[in-house]
Amino acid sequence: MTLSLLKTIIQRKKYLENKLKMNFSAISVYPKNLDNAQHKNCENMIGATQIPLGIAGPLKVSGNYTEGSFFLPLATTEGALVASVNRGCKAATLSGGVRSFCQDVGITRGSVFKTPGLKDSFILKKFLQDNFSRLKKLAAATSSHLQLIALQTKIVGNLLYIRFSYDSQEAMGMNMVTIATDKLVQFISLKTGNLCLSVAANFDVDKKPSYLNFIEGRGRQVWAEAVISAPIIRDVLKTSASKIDEVVRLKCYLGSIISGSLGFNAHFANILSALFIALGQDVAHVAEGSIGLTTTEIVNNNLYISVYLPDLPLGTIGGGTSLPAQQEALRILNVTAGEKGEKARKLAEIVGAAVLAGELSLLSALSVGQLASSHMKLARNGS
Amino acid sequence: MTLSLLKTIIQRKKYLENKLKMNFSAISVYPKNLDNAQHKNCENMIGATQIPLGIAGPLKVSGNYTEGSFFLPLATTEGALVASVNRGCKAATLSGGVRSFCQDVGITRGSVFKTPGLKDSFILKKFLQDNFSRLKKLAAATSSHLQLIALQTKIVGNLLYIRFSYDSQEAMGMNMVTIATDKLVQFISLKTGNLCLSVAANFDVDKKPSYLNFIEGRGRQVWAEAVISAPIIRDVLKTSASKIDEVVRLKCYLGSIISGSLGFNAHFANILSALFIALGQDVAHVAEGSIGLTTTEIVNNNLYISVYLPDLPLGTIGGGTSLPAQQEALRILNVTAGEKGEKARKLAEIVGAAVLAGELSLLSALSVGQLASSHMKLARNGS
Amino acid sequence: MTLSLLKTIIQRKKYLENKLKMNFSAISVYPKNLDNAQHKNCENMIGATQIPLGIAGPLKVSGNYTEGSFFLPLATTEGALVASVNRGCKAATLSGGVRSFCQDVGITRGSVFKTPGLKDSFILKKFLQDNFSRLKKLAAATSSHLQLIALQTKIVGNLLYIRFSYDSQEAMGMNMVTIATDKLVQFISLKTGNLCLSVAANFDVDKKPSYLNFIEGRGRQVWAEAVISAPIIRDVLKTSASKIDEVVRLKCYLGSIISGSLGFNAHFANILSALFIALGQDVAHVAEGSIGLTTTEIVNNNLYISVYLPDLPLGTIGGGTSLPAQQEALRILNVTAGEKGEKARKLAEIVGAAVLAGELSLLSALSVGQLASSHMKLARNGS
Amino acid sequence: MTLSLLKTIIQRKKYLENKLKMNFSAISVYPKNLDNAQHKNCENMIGATQIPLGIAGPLKVSGNYTEGSFFLPLATTEGALVASVNRGCKAATLSGGVRSFCQDVGITRGSVFKTPGLKDSFILKKFLQDNFSRLKKLAAATSSHLQLIALQTKIVGNLLYIRFSYDSQEAMGMNMVTIATDKLVQFISLKTGNLCLSVAANFDVDKKPSYLNFIEGRGRQVWAEAVISAPIIRDVLKTSASKIDEVVRLKCYLGSIISGSLGFNAHFANILSALFIALGQDVAHVAEGSIGLTTTEIVNNNLYISVYLPDLPLGTIGGGTSLPAQQEALRILNVTAGEKGEKARKLAEIVGAAVLAGELSLLSALSVGQLASSHMKLARNGS
Repeated sequence: MTLSLLKTIIQRKKYLENKLKMNFSAISVYPKNLDNAQHKNCENMIGATQIPLGIAGPLKVSGNYTEGSFFLPLATTEGALVASVNRGCKAATLSGGVRSFCQDVGITRGSVFKTPGLKDSFILKKFLQDNFSRLKKLAAATSSHLQLIALQTKIVGNLLYIRFSYDSQEAMGMNMVTIATDKLVQFISLKTGNLCLSVAANFDVDKKPSYLNFIEGRGRQVWAEAVISAPIIRDVLKTSASKIDEVVRLKCYLGSIISGSLGFNAHFANILSALFIALGQDVAHVAEGSIGLTTTEIVNNNLYISVYLPDLPLGTIGGGTSLPAQQEALRILNVTAGEKGEKARKLAEIVGAAVLAGELSLLSALSVGQLASSHMKLARNGS
Repeated sequence: MTLSLLKTIIQRKKYLENKLKMNFSAISVYPKNLDNAQHKNCENMIGATQIPLGIAGPLKVSGNYTEGSFFLPLATTEGALVASVNRGCKAATLSGGVRSFCQDVGITRGSVFKTPGLKDSFILKKFLQDNFSRLKKLAAATSSHLQLIALQTKIVGNLLYIRFSYDSQEAMGMNMVTIATDKLVQFISLKTGNLCLSVAANFDVDKKPSYLNFIEGRGRQVWAEAVISAPIIRDVLKTSASKIDEVVRLKCYLGSIISGSLGFNAHFANILSALFIALGQDVAHVAEGSIGLTTTEIVNNNLYISVYLPDLPLGTIGGGTSLPAQQEALRILNVTAGEKGEKARKLAEIVGAAVLAGELSLLSALSVGQLASSHMKLARNGS
Repeated sequence: MTLSLLKTIIQRKKYLENKLKMNFSAISVYPKNLDNAQHKNCENMIGATQIPLGIAGPLKVSGNYTEGSFFLPLATTEGALVASVNRGCKAATLSGGVRSFCQDVGITRGSVFKTPGLKDSFILKKFLQDNFSRLKKLAAATSSHLQLIALQTKIVGNLLYIRFSYDSQEAMGMNMVTIATDKLVQFISLKTGNLCLSVAANFDVDKKPSYLNFIEGRGRQVWAEAVISAPIIRDVLKTSASKIDEVVRLKCYLGSIISGSLGFNAHFANILSALFIALGQDVAHVAEGSIGLTTTEIVNNNLYISVYLPDLPLGTIGGGTSLPAQQEALRILNVTAGEKGEKARKLAEIVGAAVLAGELSLLSALSVGQLASSHMKLARNGS
Repeated sequence: MTLSLLKTIIQRKKYLENKLKMNFSAISVYPKNLDNAQHKNCENMIGATQIPLGIAGPLKVSGNYTEGSFFLPLATTEGALVASVNRGCKAATLSGGVRSFCQDVGITRGSVFKTPGLKDSFILKKFLQDNFSRLKKLAAATSSHLQLIALQTKIVGNLLYIRFSYDSQEAMGMNMVTIATDKLVQFISLKTGNLCLSVAANFDVDKKPSYLNFIEGRGRQVWAEAVISAPIIRDVLKTSASKIDEVVRLKCYLGSIISGSLGFNAHFANILSALFIALGQDVAHVAEGSIGLTTTEIVNNNLYISVYLPDLPLGTIGGGTSLPAQQEALRILNVTAGEKGEKARKLAEIVGAAVLAGELSLLSALSVGQLASSHMKLARNGS
């Protein structure tokens, strides 16, 4: 930490304190090395906000990239969330754990080009198909950790939208793909004479809920499942498989259907936001991550439960992952120092399993009318 | 701060350090009074995660509850965001500021009842209408800061969904409304013999994007607008009104349309998540807040720009608002110690204005192809 | 029938026959009185298209406006549809019939006004609320069969959308409400100085599927339910309650969920389009009518089944209802010569019950893998 | 026509006349050869419903499969529709005509399989990929006019949905693909041991509006465009390019956005339903066809207009196409006796161009406040 940088931050804080006639004692507390954030994470930095960090688990998870029991770091200000996830972890782990599988679908950037009309739109589309390997090379030249893996087009009259999909390996990747896509659209404009009117044109779809991402996925996709045995449902979750199954039908299916919701689940967003803050992810991606499904089925009085998260942009490097506390949290899950995306996919599998644990616990509480009482004991908000 | 509590947290951290053979130096740094979080915000607490806090502004805002210039506290790990919002603040403030108007629509909880069939569903609906004032009293009895203001029903065969809407004054309110709704559904069950199968049945819709909330609103609704003059667009934003207007059409309208997105905007989620973390809000609500519209119009080479956020659950008390750094951030906006919701609505108006500033800046960057270059200079993720 | 009109139609047909060197023998066949259509239903008329008309039922229906057994007139070119609905009618009628309940929600027209900005948008909104009774009178003056019953507004910056809802009694009403709304928007413009930029601005939403209509309803809303006893499921439908219930979960809930569909049903559109053609309704409204839900529940091996059609614009007068064959079809259901909407609501209840019968039969066929075989026997298209 | 069949129909009609004490003079009128419908199109036939048939055009269309000027057969009961389309045809044709391009995306059937769990779901997915050519052969064996061209899967826990896409050449194809898919799912079940629980599981999505079809297309996709010159806009359409462009922004974009509609257009459903009835198509497909976009742009006071119909199941053989009047209507467009889909694609291109003409005319009327007056003159319903 350079002295001059610390000075800048302190001066800026002082300026604001004087200006507002306030005294910031809490905001300015932050650990060694956080000041690097000034260069990479946050301009005009005046300090740091502290989010309480709790631990749930251990949760037993097995998948294509994951095997073991994990303590889950959850940074949250919402009482009862950690306790609730913890209970879900216990029930799932006692039942043999969660199977969780990640598939990379690629992080996307969606641009728009203007053409003279439909014929040229189709010609441009053909150009993109014919020159895919060239575009791949151009993209790869912008970063050794980035691969263009697909492109998808949508013609609307004299407009052509392109959704570029990239393998960003260990990174969530939006930064890299924006730089790469910028090169690609410049090349396409130069070669075809059609202007790119916006490199980011909501065909990504970045940080907004969308059916496109629901249907085709974005970032990492995760599926997780567990079978919770009848005695554990009774003893740990204080309910029955049929009661949980009924709540899923009435809340996650029918309740969401009549509300025109893209979230056919109980509370993905709660678990995701707590994990994302703790693990240095881009919290705005909760807007996307909150879409997805929870399903259940009664199998001989046991409960089969699954979650499907189609749209989960996350990574183990870049963004907030190198900040001190966040880095420690990633190390709790042993998902640092990865290569080619294995650790990012492991992280996604653990996230999927944690979401399942959270769903299981809240659905159980709802099925026996205990949501309010847990809110009263703790200070839980939302579901 | 009691010594015994600090001990518990330290012991818990130690246990985890031993268990994982790790040393947590960053996680454990937190200011005085953060340990209260153990009781209210976060079970199994082992420390705190620090999120860099930057300042944008000042932003001039006027509305029904707001008048003045405000520094915006933004807690983020995504480089370029603070700088971008800052530029938007400058352009908007130089152009006379942002007009921002909040309307409470009420925070909701949606429950589901089972009836014997359609006839009884209609009878139950009538019971609710006939007994509304009684339900109002019952709800009021659970908290002096809560008012049941409306209920809306949806019959689906032998199911009846109820969406209870509450005025939660200064609080975001999910905790209070869950407790109140629990009382109401018990009363309804007792009086009508129909069981409530889930007090929270996604008819809220809490923490999931939905058309119901898009159409009817939830929490606070905010509209903000500004007219940015041509010289300021040129000098501060380095673009023109017609270029911005075209990006809005291609990105916020058509790009979102072809993607089946509920976010007809550039990046609401970015600004909201940074403000929500800084201000002690429930970050999971970004899943809802990210829906909404940005519109523009060219008026004599100036730019009329508006944002509409239909679904913004937020408050100035409860949740994370009493945590040390968060409380200081709220005081930066002078939205503490409010009564009957005036400060919460002021907060919503400032949030709406900040979102407008963020939209203006990113749309400008996109309109002249500068997104990637700002990403390269800083380390910005996403849009 | 005037000779001169017949001449016009024949001459027009001849002109086209000559022009195209074709001979129209089928197109020109039509009954007495169809030529009135030239004035009211179809310009440039050259004849008529014949749609085969089949009969299903009788179907036992009871509701708020309906009591009895009904033969259902279905005009369709899709083999197997009539047979399938017929089977559903049999199963439902043998089980005691269908309970079907209609509620008028009003036919809507949605207009858009331009204002100078947000403050004026709010002022305009208040003007509308303050002058509602005056608007009511103005609307009533355009037709003795029309009542303005509600208006709903949506502000988006300097735009204000108004959704006018009308009771159109026996008519579907789009014609009447367009004329009435035209008067209203002229009055509003005159009094407030804000221009109406489009009297029909998709806030209706007319003839497009939409969540607004799904959530708030349009035209008539119908709910229908039946309990099909186990022996009838076995003997008539050749399946079991649990098999049907599983198909509903996998197809109508989860299948539609993963497809981003607003139709959480098996094939509402098939039954609606056949009824609408036969009964002189506006077939384009199938775009709206196809949204809605089918739910089931197993109750002691019997099947509880319900359908919910939130968005069903229909009427017994106006449009195609006075055409000769259509009028006869309406008389089959005894829904002509109604007053104040009773017959239109009866029609809606019968339509709801018919849709339930159609759902029941197709879901049964799917549950035992018989869709293809019925397609092979007959020539059925689609589901 | 056999005497015995005619007798059956007449007897059935008589039975109903006696039963209901009514006399059907209109219903029974139908041309020679319509009685074949009894075998293929409509069980329990008692006669035919006549829909007035009007003619619009000629409309100049050029595309990949189309070149020429076409009279459009429109069967409708909604006054003003033919006149309105006719005006659009005139303006478009005078401006040089419509360019319209069809691409087959394939007709789909979506089935669901049950597996023991996620691992088996992934194994089943791999089986499908590995055995694609075998599935292709099996499908081809069911009809010489059918090709399996793609399959798409969606895993949700212990469920796997498959969307089979087929080239159905000249047919709309739902009948064929149901039979073929039935064979495929039997083969898959046999080889893998996983049961198909519904051959039609709404992953098609057949006859319901859906984002899946909006995004990926279904049946035929069509794009059409035209540039309408300023003098023609003034003289024929009585408005200006900028007025039309503004209505598109306020109605087709923003109006649909705030209503959660999938129809970002003025009235696709009107034109489609009139063409579909006239041309023997399955009218229930209007539920899908009504989704799609209309876009405009002002280019030197001229108007660029485009329509995009992503989801248009149609054909020139099968279904109602062989009925007498419908066959004549197809011959008016010269789209009979096609091979390998060329005529079906030509039909789609003409339909796309007709839809554009209809959009142009209604948008023009709205832009100058003439919707109501045309409703008053004629008896037009809806938009």
